[in-house]
Formats: sequence, C-alpha cells, structure tokens
Amino acid sequence: MKAVRLHEYDKRPVVEDVPEPEVSGPFDVLVEIGGAGLCRTDLHIVEGQWAEKSGVALPYTIGHENAGWVRAVGSAVSTLAPGDTVILHPIVTCGLCRACRAGDDVHCANSRFPGIDSDGGMAELLLTTARSVIRLDPSLRPADVAALADAGLTAYHAVRKAVPLLYPGTRVVVIGAGGLGHIGVQCLAAMTPAEVIVVDRSPAALELARSAAHTVVADGAHVDAVLDQTGGEGAHVVLDFVGERGTETEGVAMLRRAGSYFVIGYGGRVDIPTIDIISSEINVIGNLVGSYNDLAELMTLAARGKVRLHTKTYPLDAVDEAMDDLDAGRLRGRGILVPERS
Amino acid sequence: MKAVRLHEYDKRPVVEDVPEPEVSGPFDVLVEIGGAGLCRTDLHIVEGQWAEKSGVALPYTIGHENAGWVRAVGSAVSTLAPGDTVILHPIVTCGLCRACRAGDDVHCANSRFPGIDSDGGMAELLLTTARSVIRLDPSLRPADVAALADAGLTAYHAVRKAVPLLYPGTRVVVIGAGGLGHIGVQCLAAMTPAEVIVVDRSPAALELARSAAHTVVADGAHVDAVLDQTGGEGAHVVLDFVGERGTETEGVAMLRRAGSYFVIGYGGRVDIPTIDIISSEINVIGNLVGSYNDLAELMTLAARGKVRLHTKTYPLDAVDEAMDDLDAGRLRGRGILVPERS
Amino acid sequence: MKAVRLHEYDKRPVVEDVPEPEVSGPFDVLVEIGGAGLCRTDLHIVEGQWAEKSGVALPYTIGHENAGWVRAVGSAVSTLAPGDTVILHPIVTCGLCRACRAGDDVHCANSRFPGIDSDGGMAELLLTTARSVIRLDPSLRPADVAALADAGLTAYHAVRKAVPLLYPGTRVVVIGAGGLGHIGVQCLAAMTPAEVIVVDRSPAALELARSAAHTVVADGAHVDAVLDQTGGEGAHVVLDFVGERGTETEGVAMLRRAGSYFVIGYGGRVDIPTIDIISSEINVIGNLVGSYNDLAELMTLAARGKVRLHTKTYPLDAVDEAMDDLDAGRLRGRGILVPERS
Amino acid sequence: MKAVRLHEYDKRPVVEDVPEPEVSGPFDVLVEIGGAGLCRTDLHIVEGQWAEKSGVALPYTIGHENAGWVRAVGSAVSTLAPGDTVILHPIVTCGLCRACRAGDDVHCANSRFPGIDSDGGMAELLLTTARSVIRLDPSLRPADVAALADAGLTAYHAVRKAVPLLYPGTRVVVIGAGGLGHIGVQCLAAMTPAEVIVVDRSPAALELARSAAHTVVADGAHVDAVLDQTGGEGAHVVLDFVGERGTETEGVAMLRRAGSYFVIGYGGRVDIPTIDIISSEINVIGNLVGSYNDLAELMTLAARGKVRLHTKTYPLDAVDEAMDDLDAGRLRGRGILVPERS
Repeated sequence: MKAVRLHEYDKRPVVEDVPEPEVSGPFDVLVEIGGAGLCRTDLHIVEGQWAEKSGVALPYTIGHENAGWVRAVGSAVSTLAPGDTVILHPIVTCGLCRACRAGDDVHCANSRFPGIDSDGGMAELLLTTARSVIRLDPSLRPADVAALADAGLTAYHAVRKAVPLLYPGTRVVVIGAGGLGHIGVQCLAAMTPAEVIVVDRSPAALELARSAAHTVVADGAHVDAVLDQTGGEGAHVVLDFVGERGTETEGVAMLRRAGSYFVIGYGGRVDIPTIDIISSEINVIGNLVGSYNDLAELMTLAARGKVRLHTKTYPLDAVDEAMDDLDAGRLRGRGILVPERS
Repeated sequence: MKAVRLHEYDKRPVVEDVPEPEVSGPFDVLVEIGGAGLCRTDLHIVEGQWAEKSGVALPYTIGHENAGWVRAVGSAVSTLAPGDTVILHPIVTCGLCRACRAGDDVHCANSRFPGIDSDGGMAELLLTTARSVIRLDPSLRPADVAALADAGLTAYHAVRKAVPLLYPGTRVVVIGAGGLGHIGVQCLAAMTPAEVIVVDRSPAALELARSAAHTVVADGAHVDAVLDQTGGEGAHVVLDFVGERGTETEGVAMLRRAGSYFVIGYGGRVDIPTIDIISSEINVIGNLVGSYNDLAELMTLAARGKVRLHTKTYPLDAVDEAMDDLDAGRLRGRGILVPERS
Repeated sequence: MKAVRLHEYDKRPVVEDVPEPEVSGPFDVLVEIGGAGLCRTDLHIVEGQWAEKSGVALPYTIGHENAGWVRAVGSAVSTLAPGDTVILHPIVTCGLCRACRAGDDVHCANSRFPGIDSDGGMAELLLTTARSVIRLDPSLRPADVAALADAGLTAYHAVRKAVPLLYPGTRVVVIGAGGLGHIGVQCLAAMTPAEVIVVDRSPAALELARSAAHTVVADGAHVDAVLDQTGGEGAHVVLDFVGERGTETEGVAMLRRAGSYFVIGYGGRVDIPTIDIISSEINVIGNLVGSYNDLAELMTLAARGKVRLHTKTYPLDAVDEAMDDLDAGRLRGRGILVPERS
Repeated sequence: MKAVRLHEYDKRPVVEDVPEPEVSGPFDVLVEIGGAGLCRTDLHIVEGQWAEKSGVALPYTIGHENAGWVRAVGSAVSTLAPGDTVILHPIVTCGLCRACRAGDDVHCANSRFPGIDSDGGMAELLLTTARSVIRLDPSLRPADVAALADAGLTAYHAVRKAVPLLYPGTRVVVIGAGGLGHIGVQCLAAMTPAEVIVVDRSPAALELARSAAHTVVADGAHVDAVLDQTGGEGAHVVLDFVGERGTETEGVAMLRRAGSYFVIGYGGRVDIPTIDIISSEINVIGNLVGSYNDLAELMTLAARGKVRLHTKTYPLDAVDEAMDDLDAGRLRGRGILVPERS
C-alpha cells in the first residue's frame, strides 16, 4: 500500500509502497483511511523537533488525525464490523491503568501515539486497536471529520472542562480564532449559555466567529476592550488557544476574581506573582488533547451539524504540495490527505 | 474601653482609651473580645505595607482574628443572644451580591476587613454585624480559637477545596510546617484519607507533624525526596503555604501528571512554560481566606479536638512585648491578646 | 392603594383599598408592581388548601409571582435605586443561616413566602427586602417576566441541577409540555447539548416544543416510544413536571442504567422496589423552586430571548375574570395582573 | 483441581475435581485462590433465586469474592507477574464501552460476573482477565481481604459517592451494623469528618461500631432518637444497608431538608409521596457494587489498617459446614473458603 514515510529529518517525507499491515491480536482493528489531517505538528516532526521526545525510528509513516472505514477486526472485537465508518482517538491506550479506567486516558501509563511515535495514518491502511476506534454516525464522511481527531478534540476537551463554570450570565474569552479556537467557539455555543468574546489579531479570522460571539481585535488595547465588555470585572473563563507572544499575560489580565485561565496553546510562559494569584483567587488550568469519550461526544455534535471544519482535500500523492500550502500560509482551513480507494 | 491603636506608620501602636462602640443598626452585634490573634500581617500593617491598599485613616484599632462573647445585638438579630461564645469571620460582607449568595463571600462586592481597613478586635469590644458572627460550641474558649479566624480559616479553605482530589491512595504535599501548614496537616487528617508529606526547612517544625504525615527536610534534595516517596510519579496535590523563595518552582516540580498546585503563601512568582502546563495537564489553584461556612465547619473540627493551635496569651497592655516576641522569632505558636474582663 | 384581598376561604378575593406599605427598615425595598402572575396555586389558596400549612391570617393580599419597578429603598440599600426594573425572588430569606450562605436559600431557616403566608403582589405596591430583589435588564417588561418568578424558576432550577448529567450524546425526557415543561425545554436548549424528548397527552401542547425537541404523545405506548427513541436503553435524565397520574412510574421506566428521575410536579407517589433502584443504580432527585442566583441566571436567558412565556394580561380589577379563565381552562399561557400606573 | 460445583438447584454444591483452567488469550490471568468469601448470595444461588437472571448452565463453580496469587499471565499482560498477591474485581468488564471508559465499569455493556453467571472462585484456580485484577500490597493476605471484593466494595462505593455531601458538621446515619454496615462505618471514619450514627436492632452488632459512631437501637423509637441526635433536623445522608422491613420508610424519615437517602440493601420498596420529595427537596440514590478503581482505593485503606473484616476460614472441603453456619446465623463475621496450597 501507499504511505507517507519520513526517512530523514529536515527532508520532506515521501510516498512509497509498504507492506499492508494485518490483524493479528484479538483487539486489533484494521482501518482503511478515508482522511488524514495535516497539521503544523507534522511540519515540526519533519524538522526533527519531536525526534528526541518521540524516540521514533526512521523511516516511519506520519499522520495523527485519522478517520476511515473498518476493513477487518480481531477475534475479540464484537462492537465493530467491516465497513463501519470510524474516527480514531489519537492515542492508543492500555485500558488497564487507573487513568484509562477513570476516563483520563490521555494520562494512560502505557500509551503510544500513532503518527508521532509509531506508524500513523497518512497511508491507505492503519492498524490500531478497538480501544481507539469510535464508530461514526453514517452521515459523517471521514475526510470531513478527520481533523477533529486531534485539533478538534483538544478544543472540545478544554470547553468540556469549563462547562461547570459557565452558567447563564457568565462570560468566556477565546484567545485565538484559528482552527482550534474556531472549534472552541462552536463547542461553547453548543454546550453553554455563556456570552463568548473572541480575541484575535486577524479581523478576517474574527469574521467567522461573529455569529456566535462578540469579537475584539488584538490591537494592543484588547485587554481593556475585554474589561469594558465585561462591566470592568473581567471574564469568568479565558480559553487561550495561543499560549505565547503575550497572550499568557493578557489572558490572566482578562480574568475576574475567582476566574480561571485555561492554557491550551503553548510556546510562552505563565508568569504571575503569587500575591496576584491569591488576592484574586484565580486558577491556571492545563489542558491536553482529550479522552476517547470526549471525542465520541464531539462526534455527536458533528453529526448534528453543531461543529464544522473548513477543509481542503489532497490526494495522498500530493502531501508535498499540501505541506507547502500549510507552510506558506496558503491553506484556509485544514488540509486533509485522502488516499484513493481501490 | 481600651484599644490597641495605630497612630503613625513605622511606630508601634499604643493602648489607649476610646469610646465604647454601640449597637445601632438592626443587624449589629457588639462583641466582648476574649482573644485577638496577633500575626505577621499586623507587623506589616505597622510598617505601612498595607497603607495604600487598605486606605484606612489613622488612628484606628488593629486586630483581625477575633473571638469572644456577645454583649448586645440589634433588633433584627434573632439567632444570637448576649453571653453566646462566638468567633468572627474576618470579613464583613453584604449578603446581597452574587458571591455572598453563592458561598463565595470572600469575593463579596461590598466588603470590609476589620483590623485592616476599619476598627478591629484588639480592644475590649468590637462592633460587627450578624453576617460575621459564628456561635461556638460552649466547650471552646475564645482565646484558644481566635487565631483560627484568619490563619486557620485560610488553611482550612485550601484543604476543603482539595478534598475532591484526595481519595484513598493519593498523596498530598504540604510545603511549610508553620502555623498555617500545621493546621493544614490537621485538616487533611480529619477530612481526607490521603497520604500526607510535609516539607520544611526546620526539623523542629517537622516534629509536630510526624504523627500525621511523612516528613521531608527542605535541604536541597527535597524535590527528589518527594518524588521518591511517591513512586517517582509526584503528588496529586501540593499545598504551598510558603509561596516564595523557590517553593513556587519546587512545588510544581513535585506534581504528578494532572496534579494541582495550590498557592496559599505568597511573595514569589509562579513561572512555568506553557508547554509544561499542557504536556502534564497540571493546574495552579489560588486560595484566599475562606467563607463564613468554611469557618463554621472548621469550628466543628476544633470543638471535637481535631484541630488545635499552640498559643501564648498576653494581656492587651502587653501588645508591644507580643510584637517584639513575634518579630524576634521568640514566639512558639500564635500570640493571642486577651483583654481583662471587667 | 388597590389590592386583591382574600377575606374568606372558598370565596373569591376582592379588590379593595388598603393603606400603602412604607419603607421602614434599612434593607426594605418598596416595589410598584408591574405584573403579578396568576397560577393554579392561587386557586388552591382560595379553596383553603394552604390554610393550615401557611397559617396566614385573613384578610391578606395574594400574588407570589411579582415584578415591577423600585419606588423607594431603605437606608442600607446601595445596589438599587428608584425606577429600577426588578423581579422578586418569591421567598424572603434571612441571609444569615447556612443555607442562605451556601446558595440554597430555598432551605432558609427563617423564610417567608409573600402571597402565600404574608401580603403578596396582586396590588399596586409590595414591600419586600433587598435580599429578594433582582434588577432586570431594562429591555425586559415586568408583565412579560413576572410568571418566571416562581413557575419559571422551578423549571430552571431543575434543569440547572441536571446540566452536569447532560453532555453531548445524552437524552433527556420532559414529561409535561405545559407552562413549566415548556420553560424547561427552552432552558435545556439554552444550557445543554442533550437531545430532548417531550411527552404530553396533548398534541397541541407538544406542537410548541417541536422545534427544540422530539415529541411523543402520551397515548399509553409512550414508555415504549421513549425506549425506541433511545436505542432501547432509556434516557439519562427524566424531568417529570407532572408527578401524578402514573407519570411517577412511567418516568422511572424511561430511565437508562444509572439514570436520574427528577421530581418537579407532584400529587402522586414514587413507589419503586429497592432491588430495582440498586440493580440499575438509578436516582430520584427532588426539586423545589430555586435560589435567588438561579432566578438571576434565568433573567439573563430571558433578556437574550432564550426563554419566553406566553401571557395574557388583565387589569387588577379583573382578577375574578382571570381566575374564571384559568379555572375553566380558557387561559392559553399565563395570566398576568397589571395594576394601572397612576 | 478441586472446585465447589453446583449441579442442581436446592441441593448443596459439591467439591469435586475439574480440569485446571489455562491461560490462552493475551489478557488472561490465572489466579491461585487464597480466599473465597461466602455470602448470603451464595445461599440464594443454591436456592435458585438467581437461576433465571444469570442464565447460567449447571454445573458450575460458585464464589464471587476472590483473592489469591497470580500463577500465569497472557502475552499482553505487562503489569502483573506470577507470585503477585491480588484481589479480583467481581465483574469481568470489556474496557471498550463508554461506561468502562468513564469509570462506571459496573454498568459495562458486555460484562460477566464469575461465580454468578460463569465459573467463580471457590476452587484452587480461577481464570480471569487483567481488567479484573488488582495487585495488593504484599502486607495483605488474600484470605483476610477476599470478602472486601464484593461486600466491602459495595459499602465503599456508597460511602465514596456520599463524600462530597459530608463536610464537617454534617451527620450521616448508617442503617444496619452487619457486614456491609460495619465496613461502611470504617470507610466513613477514614474518608469523612462527618458525625456517624449507626442504627441496628442488635445491641451486640452496635457494640462494634461504638468507637467510631453514636449508636441507636432500632427499638421502634429510633427515628425519633435520630432526630433528637440531629437537633430535630435529621441527617444529611442516610446509608441504608438493609433496604427492607421498614428501613426504606424510616431512612427517609431520618433525612433533613435537601438530604439524600442511599439505597444499598434491598428487598423492600421505596414509597414516597411526590409532594414530600419536592417540599423537602430530598434525593434517593441507588448504589450498585463499585468500580475497579473503587476496589483499588479500598485496598489502600485495608493496607493501612483503616478497614478490617472479621473472618472465619474453612478449608474448601468444608463448604457445606460453612453454608450451614451462615444459614443458621452461627457465623460471626465473614466465612472464607481457603483451598489447600499444594
């Protein structure tokens, strides 16, 4: 089968023929890929930024946002059948540790991350296990939802954790109206009655959010603008999808007393005097991907049209072009690689 | 009546005669002080560190940890009677704003803080309102519990917020075995099944905690020592009663994945790369004093002997000596000023 | 001023002149009534069903769903001013007991219920206290929202308690599409992503809910119909706004494993074998009115048009006609008595 | 190997030789039984009360409270090794359904219950899967803890759910001081600061609880006695380990406003007018066994001596005598069958 394989860091991956994986274990599931999302992490992988952290041996197949159809299942898999439309939770988890059993499978003690530290989904087939497979509503097309498997899941997970804080009359700020932030705004609208304020440097990016949120251009006066829009008190929750270049400080400055700042994007530093943390009793909340159940919940929102992604599809062979488009900022929405179906 | 009055910053307060306050409003409560706790904040007030923040006009009476007996009540107060033993919540709150109605009275939109921004309790009498008065079990003596009104309440509040995280098998680190930390350890033992690890630079301070906790001397290798005691994984919760001089960094380093670092002490800075916050999905939780209901709960623990303070009492006239003892580090436990009862 | 006064049980109340109430206490608030909701409870009061429970002395003024404008405030009220548009929480609470301080003001240890056990709002003026007054968004008209003060609040409170159970992919059944149920459906749509199924005997009543919910006619086969619509598993939550004539049994039968049955309406009995409670680990959740903060939250939904009531207004003098209409089933939506403004 | 096999309903099971089970699947775990608890359910199984519900084919091996040592593991099991001391969660779960992934594994969509619907642990060996095996602290002996696997777990689970309701100053009533109730009292003492009141008909049973709880003899005046001990208000939580013969009504009568009645024992009916449920806003909470994580948590309490069972051991061959003792009420504490180790 064809697969997008990385042979050497700092060199683009190539499309080549590799042997088809096969079901051997009782919980194995073999998936025909219908869409594999391309994201900035893939560029970072090529650049070698993840080489040490993942410890992966080259060559290997990249692609960590995957959806498709079941081709075959292991002997113990009774809940899936060939032909089922599926999306894959990005992490393969053990199902045995406390975290897996408590719904925190992201903190699984024995996990792997296909596309990062083992063969991923930019290929015709991906071998995974039943622990990672979510059966989709037949109305969903793999290429349309693949990018929800990681980027969307991360946004959903953060919003889901914020739900108990967001009753009627509360305000939530979304910093960053890009891919994740855009999904975050849709999840907030679907799941909470909170008033949403979106902050971004790009007026064009803000345009997309205008129907569901107030918008504030990040022009230097945006912290004050948010305080104005919240009666001078600040927001109950700030979801920071950027996490660098000053948003770490601005996000905290937008909080009201007892408010919570959710870190989702990264790159910068949270740096706050302890007296400020205690005198206003604020919280800083970390967020990492999301659980299998989170992704299943997000899929019910997607099936009802509550969460939608803008995508551009490329054939698997065009991975280089897709990477060029992403790298050059020419890609509006998410790039999705779609293998030809034989 | 006698009162400890601050006339000028950087000069010790003096004991002098002032007119007795009187009940006038329907919710007023006049309290004969049986014990007024002295704490480091009082020294900072004298030094003028709070001058700007509090905006208080000099001279005024200090003392923000107060307990005693009801002398008189306003016409609308039906739940208290002269002679009742009482402790005073440190904040006088409005009872009308959302925060007061939601049990977050520390975030009351219209509060004042007697002893900080208005006349306090280092005096024979203190005038307050029914919103701040907690009737005590008759077995409790005001001088024994007065210091729980602020210091104890702060420790209790943080532990109370951590309770849902501390099921059997979890570990909690207490940084700082001083006054607040010591109460924190007692609250943890009374309210949770968690394994407690106390860290302090002073082996003598650790001695007190030995019956209820593992102890670790903060000798430079203490982060590693905590990791060792937690199977290399770190603690589920870290309660930092110091919040400066490096504990802000060490406390975060002691966390396990998805763990929570509670800021209680202050003076330093929390400074964490956003990638570390998200990759281990940790939280930083601010903590500020505690609610009236928190204090009432703490009093039930005190009445049952589950929380005890070490105290040294001084007559009101000896406030200068008490401040000297505190300042010079000669005071073991809490200093309590006790007015003579006429 | 004019007031609707009940002089004798089983005789309709009369409109007569009474002295105007006046502000005397520091927290008093005098309200010009702009709308007083009429509900079935008022008919029951006239019939004497509440005589013993309320212990009220006749004659007195009825009316427990009130909204209007502030005319005057007591000396200690700083958050309200004459002219403010307001709605009144139905219960006058003490603000001092644990329940009031914890946001459970319905369980206040020292409350009264104007219109039930003391003078209510079917009058030109009502004297209450600042603890019960919620300032409204100026876009809201008292006559439009008055009936949310009790009926709407009860529905909101139950939905609010169910929110943590209603994540994407869950199903909630609303039994009873009348006044409360209709508000319940609107609150569910505004606050949760759950799939809503409404059950009622009246196809006409169901019609109103069709845009926000699946509808099931209670025709005898409705338990099976709900099970069919939930994949045979039953609903995560059932909100029973009827609570009699068999819905108590049917509601429980509609639950899935670990589901929760919320009792809101009343009149019947919940009767379940303990083995059925434990073998499916279900819950029965009581619901009673709602807190001040609940009502304030509901008002933000009303201000944004998320919750709307159908009303018919009557002048105060027409109370008898309004009661006739209600009694005879001629009243579509809620009847609202509106005093003439001088 | 020897096993206790049921061949016919209403006839005692016999000890006979059966082939040893063997590891075949990758997640299989073969356990040498060190203790198998005998409980009243086993008598009911023999009487045929579970025949229809379980659908089990005779003959089969009973025993659903099992602990021992690992003898062998499947190829995919990396967290257990031969020789490990272990206790078995009573349910074998799939690890794939939403419930398993959310920590509600009792509601697993594809579970079986060894000893009830398939071969259990009254035998020298039991074959199970890694999903059900908890490694124990080496200080624990299988025969001492086996009965915690089901009876203890059930009590723990109910207490764990009640923890958020049981802050300092609250009261909890335990109805039934037998096996489960006794463990419940120990769990309450270990995990909460609540005041505990135990109610039982047997003064002897109450004796055991006296150090950790107030005791009330169920002599007909016990509801009033509980109300007296709770200041006339009733308890915040009632844990009913009996659930029949009147405790269902008495337990509810012991509740305070907004209190919660936990059903754990069964046999009777909960029967409450809906008006009583709403006017005091009470809850009825079902409870069923407990999760794997619950059992792991309980084991940490057992390892620290916080929860202890009284047991009497019998060799496997003496199962008939053990059943006689249990049936005749001669058994103090729990009967544990212990196979001889070859």
